[in-house]
Amino acid sequence: MKDDKIITKWVYTFGGGSAEGTAKMKNLLGGKGANLAEMAGLGLPVPPGFTITTEVCTYYYANGNTYPGTLKSTVAAALAGLEKIMGMTFGDADNPLLVSVRSGARASMPGMMDTILNLGLNDSTVRGLAKRSRDERFAWDSYRRFIQMYSNVVLEIGHHNFEEILQNLKDGKGYKLDTDLKAEDWKVIVDRYKAKVAEKLGKPFPQDVQEQLWGAIGAVFESWMNQRAITYRRLNEIPESWGTAVNVQCMVFGNMGEDSATGVCFSRDPSTGENTFYGEYLVNAQGEDVVAGIRTPQQITIAGRNKQKSDLPSMEEIMPPLYRQLYDIRTRLEGHYRDMQDMEFTIQRGRLWMLQTRVGKRTAKAALKIAIDMARDGVISKEEAVQRVDPSALDQLLHPTIDPKAKKTVLARGLPASPGAASGQVVFSADDAETWVNAGKKVLLVRVETSPEDIGGMHVAEGILTTRGGMTSHAAVVARGMGTPCVAGAGDIAVNHKARTFSIKNTTVKEGDVITIDGATGEIMLGAVPMIQPELTGDFGTLMEWADSLRTMKVRANAETPTDAAQARTFGAEGIGLCRTEHMFFDPERIIAVREMILAKDEAGRRAALAKLLPFQRQDFIDLFTIMQGLPVTVRLLDPPLHEFLPHTDAEIAEVAKAAGLDAATIKDRNAQLHEANPMLGHRGCRLGVTYPEIYEMQAQAIFEGAIAVTQKGGAPVVPEIMIPLVSTKKELDLMKAAIAKMAEQVFTATGVTLPYQVGTMIELPRAALRAGDIAESAEFFSFGTNDLTQTTLGMSRDDSAPFLEVYRAKNIYEKDPFASLDTEGVGELIKIAAERGRKTRADLKLGICGEHGGDPASIMFCQTVGLNYVSCSPFRVPIARLAAAQAALGAKDESQK
Amino acid sequence: MKDDKIITKWVYTFGGGSAEGTAKMKNLLGGKGANLAEMAGLGLPVPPGFTITTEVCTYYYANGNTYPGTLKSTVAAALAGLEKIMGMTFGDADNPLLVSVRSGARASMPGMMDTILNLGLNDSTVRGLAKRSRDERFAWDSYRRFIQMYSNVVLEIGHHNFEEILQNLKDGKGYKLDTDLKAEDWKVIVDRYKAKVAEKLGKPFPQDVQEQLWGAIGAVFESWMNQRAITYRRLNEIPESWGTAVNVQCMVFGNMGEDSATGVCFSRDPSTGENTFYGEYLVNAQGEDVVAGIRTPQQITIAGRNKQKSDLPSMEEIMPPLYRQLYDIRTRLEGHYRDMQDMEFTIQRGRLWMLQTRVGKRTAKAALKIAIDMARDGVISKEEAVQRVDPSALDQLLHPTIDPKAKKTVLARGLPASPGAASGQVVFSADDAETWVNAGKKVLLVRVETSPEDIGGMHVAEGILTTRGGMTSHAAVVARGMGTPCVAGAGDIAVNHKARTFSIKNTTVKEGDVITIDGATGEIMLGAVPMIQPELTGDFGTLMEWADSLRTMKVRANAETPTDAAQARTFGAEGIGLCRTEHMFFDPERIIAVREMILAKDEAGRRAALAKLLPFQRQDFIDLFTIMQGLPVTVRLLDPPLHEFLPHTDAEIAEVAKAAGLDAATIKDRNAQLHEANPMLGHRGCRLGVTYPEIYEMQAQAIFEGAIAVTQKGGAPVVPEIMIPLVSTKKELDLMKAAIAKMAEQVFTATGVTLPYQVGTMIELPRAALRAGDIAESAEFFSFGTNDLTQTTLGMSRDDSAPFLEVYRAKNIYEKDPFASLDTEGVGELIKIAAERGRKTRADLKLGICGEHGGDPASIMFCQTVGLNYVSCSPFRVPIARLAAAQAALGAKDESQK
Repeated sequence: MKDDKIITKWVYTFGGGSAEGTAKMKNLLGGKGANLAEMAGLGLPVPPGFTITTEVCTYYYANGNTYPGTLKSTVAAALAGLEKIMGMTFGDADNPLLVSVRSGARASMPGMMDTILNLGLNDSTVRGLAKRSRDERFAWDSYRRFIQMYSNVVLEIGHHNFEEILQNLKDGKGYKLDTDLKAEDWKVIVDRYKAKVAEKLGKPFPQDVQEQLWGAIGAVFESWMNQRAITYRRLNEIPESWGTAVNVQCMVFGNMGEDSATGVCFSRDPSTGENTFYGEYLVNAQGEDVVAGIRTPQQITIAGRNKQKSDLPSMEEIMPPLYRQLYDIRTRLEGHYRDMQDMEFTIQRGRLWMLQTRVGKRTAKAALKIAIDMARDGVISKEEAVQRVDPSALDQLLHPTIDPKAKKTVLARGLPASPGAASGQVVFSADDAETWVNAGKKVLLVRVETSPEDIGGMHVAEGILTTRGGMTSHAAVVARGMGTPCVAGAGDIAVNHKARTFSIKNTTVKEGDVITIDGATGEIMLGAVPMIQPELTGDFGTLMEWADSLRTMKVRANAETPTDAAQARTFGAEGIGLCRTEHMFFDPERIIAVREMILAKDEAGRRAALAKLLPFQRQDFIDLFTIMQGLPVTVRLLDPPLHEFLPHTDAEIAEVAKAAGLDAATIKDRNAQLHEANPMLGHRGCRLGVTYPEIYEMQAQAIFEGAIAVTQKGGAPVVPEIMIPLVSTKKELDLMKAAIAKMAEQVFTATGVTLPYQVGTMIELPRAALRAGDIAESAEFFSFGTNDLTQTTLGMSRDDSAPFLEVYRAKNIYEKDPFASLDTEGVGELIKIAAERGRKTRADLKLGICGEHGGDPASIMFCQTVGLNYVSCSPFRVPIARLAAAQAALGAKDESQK
Repeated sequence: MKDDKIITKWVYTFGGGSAEGTAKMKNLLGGKGANLAEMAGLGLPVPPGFTITTEVCTYYYANGNTYPGTLKSTVAAALAGLEKIMGMTFGDADNPLLVSVRSGARASMPGMMDTILNLGLNDSTVRGLAKRSRDERFAWDSYRRFIQMYSNVVLEIGHHNFEEILQNLKDGKGYKLDTDLKAEDWKVIVDRYKAKVAEKLGKPFPQDVQEQLWGAIGAVFESWMNQRAITYRRLNEIPESWGTAVNVQCMVFGNMGEDSATGVCFSRDPSTGENTFYGEYLVNAQGEDVVAGIRTPQQITIAGRNKQKSDLPSMEEIMPPLYRQLYDIRTRLEGHYRDMQDMEFTIQRGRLWMLQTRVGKRTAKAALKIAIDMARDGVISKEEAVQRVDPSALDQLLHPTIDPKAKKTVLARGLPASPGAASGQVVFSADDAETWVNAGKKVLLVRVETSPEDIGGMHVAEGILTTRGGMTSHAAVVARGMGTPCVAGAGDIAVNHKARTFSIKNTTVKEGDVITIDGATGEIMLGAVPMIQPELTGDFGTLMEWADSLRTMKVRANAETPTDAAQARTFGAEGIGLCRTEHMFFDPERIIAVREMILAKDEAGRRAALAKLLPFQRQDFIDLFTIMQGLPVTVRLLDPPLHEFLPHTDAEIAEVAKAAGLDAATIKDRNAQLHEANPMLGHRGCRLGVTYPEIYEMQAQAIFEGAIAVTQKGGAPVVPEIMIPLVSTKKELDLMKAAIAKMAEQVFTATGVTLPYQVGTMIELPRAALRAGDIAESAEFFSFGTNDLTQTTLGMSRDDSAPFLEVYRAKNIYEKDPFASLDTEGVGELIKIAAERGRKTRADLKLGICGEHGGDPASIMFCQTVGLNYVSCSPFRVPIARLAAAQAALGAKDESQK
């Protein structure tokens, strides 16, 4: 709640050597505004401007799309300040001040929010601009750009209306390029544009510059709620409540001739993380020309030019003093922010202006290298380095790469825009990508260039290939953010949308054909090329080592096969948190005995069948315990309902009947008998153990005999952790624990060897969480089975939720998929309750998580706050969990130091 | 925890004009022991004895079936006390003291626990008994009874061994009846019995009376855990932890000749509740002869004899002074206990001994009449009267009775042992009853007499018919307890077990034939005789009136049809707590449109189909609101998954396809598309409203238009309560509430009529309970959907739980079926959390329950403690809920006055 006595400051100015804001005010000023203020405060050449805060956006949506009462006068004052600094006047026919109006949210949302340039031009000021710039062509070109941009963003008149007019004129005049148009041509275009606006709008294009300004400000705020922004926020988990700021800034022009330019640069290579200045620019162009990827940009450095094998001269070569100034600014900004910077600049008639700086997006590989390099150089601490790498992005580093020994047919080469190799069937639209993926296919999205509308398709594609645009094009930026391999700007490729093909020289690739791209080299290859697994050494190994030294939670893996267990150890797992014994039952050799057990008429029959399973199950544990070398292994006893093991189609039933010497009717009867309306809530978990104790007895016997066998062979000592699933009340656990203890005694007596073991339970039902205090009297550990706990707490079947969960996410009912990232408010509270009540009963109760959420960084953060001892996840997510656990520990530390 | 310094008193003595215990010590002494002590304390003629406490039973099971160290000496001292009072010595060859050993738990468990009589007899003391009783035949008969009883209960040698010996002797001697045997015959029998015991046991029958005593005490404690006891406890919801006491008491004999007798009597008629002395006795018999129903007993009063049209003389006639003494005791005991008493007595050689008194079991009708009579007479208060009637037993009063105008073929007549009329297919064993009922049939169990082994079958039968035994026989007592109609002792009926028939004169009824019994008249009729509903006036009406004046929770009904709504009002429902709109969708006229809606390709198609449903749905609400006359009606919007409305068999699909003008494949495709692995957790409830808002819009429109139509026709004002199902987060409710509000405005604008309404939600998911604080920001009421809340909290599908729940209850994992009676520890905590959090947000939040538990007395008690505003249940349970709510309010009041 805001104190009524404090008058809210809605607008912050910057420029002219000072600024009211700082980089720390991102929440209020947005990323762009905060960094512009910071740069201006540092005395860097920033075009003066002001930022309307995100609080205005919040106010706007909370008050029926209206502004705070004092906003208009405050903006007017800020504008007067700009006029004073620039010695120009907004709307002045002689010396007009022009401004840009840009959105700027707390997090970068590339291409999502609409921008308006050259605002302040009208039929009168355009003449002033022409006079002052001494370039009538430039002035009218700027005006027509403004009309088009403003009409599109504010007046919602589609681009195509204007492109048609331009094309018609070019066709009539026989022009091929926009640069062929003369000042007079642009004047004609402007007239026609205005006529089109009047026709579409029913009134003329606004000539009042104040009307233009407020129209643009409103459009920025409105754009916060457009569908693309909503989709982007959903995909990137950005809360709607943040809102956007609006930046109004004096225009500088990179398109005022050959001594003007505009560019984007990074203080280090955003793709590899190398400490080399890296960037692209275009001479005589406006900023959007670079980002849109319409013209292939030039490299800023000579080294960059050599690396890209570009024919176009670098800025280092043709504008050496400006290059040095930019290089100095780059060094200063990176030093100031202690992180790699992504900067935009414009050169207007030989003068350099910084338009933006922000922490640069980077590939996981680059993030890793930059973090390790900066820590090694003493710029940041080891803790900071660990916090600089997004755990989810590590996936990229675990991506396969092309096997160097593989035979490959390289069709063409583009820019290496986002690392990792990917194969998939070619599709030519984002919609097709989504449709094909929904049908179970893997696709490679091929586009001339991508736009925000393509986000959905880009998200599901294995890889992305574009034929236009550079390393900072939409496709490249988005793909890196998503961790999706991408090759951009492969200009040799000609896409034929109608035929649904693309061709390179003599080769034609049809929709549905498989190709492979290598986002690290830019190669495009025919067919599916063999790949190899990444090595987990070097910087990656260092980061993991640092993470391990900082985290307090252990990381285990969910694994049951020797292959998975070995993989888990390679990735650094410190034990097995969930060995699902039922997975061992499906082996063809065993399933016969499993079915015999299920089809048995009585306990004696079941015991006979279980006796056949025992040697297999024992060997499973011998293998597992041998691989895990004394690390803890949590074995969950049989969990799924028995009908899952029976055949269901007529053909399968006939086959099984024949093999088992039974008639098909018997199997069908048993199937019918075991059929359940809601198997998820049915006869499974410890309910099987209670009704058929002999099953759990056999499993306990196999565990104890297996552990003893490994110990007797001289293996590391094994302390099995036996886990009872689906417990809802202490009595169930008591019964099962007693049966296990009896079996332990039996095996210990028979072998003459005794070993310690633990019995614990899954906490995967709300009742179990609530009754954790009782249950902990019997349980020596809890493992939160958050998959089932989510299903029961939300009353939502994971298998059935897709059709409505998609709508739910679109309608913003759930911000995240609760099966991917823990619902901390609901499921999380139950975990908290269970942890507290359990530990109250048994102070040294071991707590872990073994649902899918155990590999999700946000969920791992939650696990830290609740005080879990370990997380357990799939082997491939172990490195992610290790890093996330370290960040969680650091976060918890930060929290405790506040 | 017991204070170590206090020495536990394990044994309490009574008799000889005083007692160490009182009636208030039931938990410690058991019901029988406490009342014997109380009677002895009152100076009534009670054979002296002592009670070993229930704490000994608890100790026994907690300490590996051993006794407290001091028990033996304490029992010896108590026994010495008896010897002193009686002037007889235990085990003395000349003047032997004989005792009975009986179980006695806190709650009466008729026929469940084993009893031993005549203990202390051996080859030596039998001669002393013969001498002292001057009846050698009696002494040897008593000895052989003791051997048989003791061997059966303690030594586990089956009765049949002894019956065979007896039968052989009778056959050899040509005797027909036991009374034909002379003293010498009984001596032979005793020798043969002892030989059989020695053969079976490998050692002789114990002659040491101390060994006999401790054997019997141990057997009583062991019997607490026998299968019959466990089953009885399960059916009657008696906790295992209560344990049983053991009563050791001097023997008195009702079988010492024609001046001896034994009987059972009630201070009022336990069947009708009339204030008349009522009882049965047998001359020259032991107590078990009355209870076992082997001889048809005589009436105690002349009035009773006349009513039963008995040929046998009453006690009032043949023993007038003893009858008067008994009558006085009856009056004194009822006055003392302020409740109807069930008493056992024995007359030994003209002297009356009271063996037991306890609050008498009674039919619901009797309970009602006695409570109302006693309150009217000022014996008890109105509050006590309300608390005296078991709400669950009211079911009996709501049972149908035979239509007096119905044509009926009366086959025979028995004793009217438990009220209510019932029809069913005849079966002859309890096992068959269970099997047939499981197969979906309704059965009438016909037995010569019943025994505790028959409990299961008696529980499932519609009615019970026996050919032997009186009003206090096992069948009669148990049937009254269960509220099952019963006709007992129908001696004209001959059962042929082998042929599976019974015959009455010329009529033979086969297994599977349908008969009807009338438990109020004792009539047995051929076929299914028409019945009528009970009237809810008189005492019933008075009780309900009193209950209504005492309760604080409202009682509503779950109803959607006009019939159910009208029935609910008749039963006193104060509104509808749950109108399940989906039930309205299955009407043949509507299901076509429902299916059209489901099969529609797009929203327009769905809206077209919904438009067809609207008039029906509107009429539903007009009907309902008209019947409910301004009482609150909570309408739950569509809840079940859509696939429930589609046909599933090939035949049905073909039929629907033809009717809908579609091909079968389309329907099958949609079925496949809608198929869910766990529909309970699937696309249902508000998830339908979120994905297909048009469905809820149509329903809201129908509700508003219906309410306005009723109001416009001059009906009582309607305040609809619109309830959103399956909410898990506030946002869902917000969305639905907004859509409803929009529809309300639309209808109000169109009709020019405005009316108040409320929007609330079901709390039926654990997450909803946890997030109740947020949800209450939008919800104006909560209704706890405890069916689904139980399913999700326990992770247990009601439809699938039967196979394991039976095992769970047998293994004592759940004491009650959580779907019948609320799991207060798990589900209950969530309800408590939701109520607290919801009310914290919105102090006047209306809270109700609409699951099955809303009609369960124990659950209603819980609802009171949590502070719910109302309970809602099926119409037939409304009276039960009204009474239970009154008792809950009184209980809560008692609690608060402690």
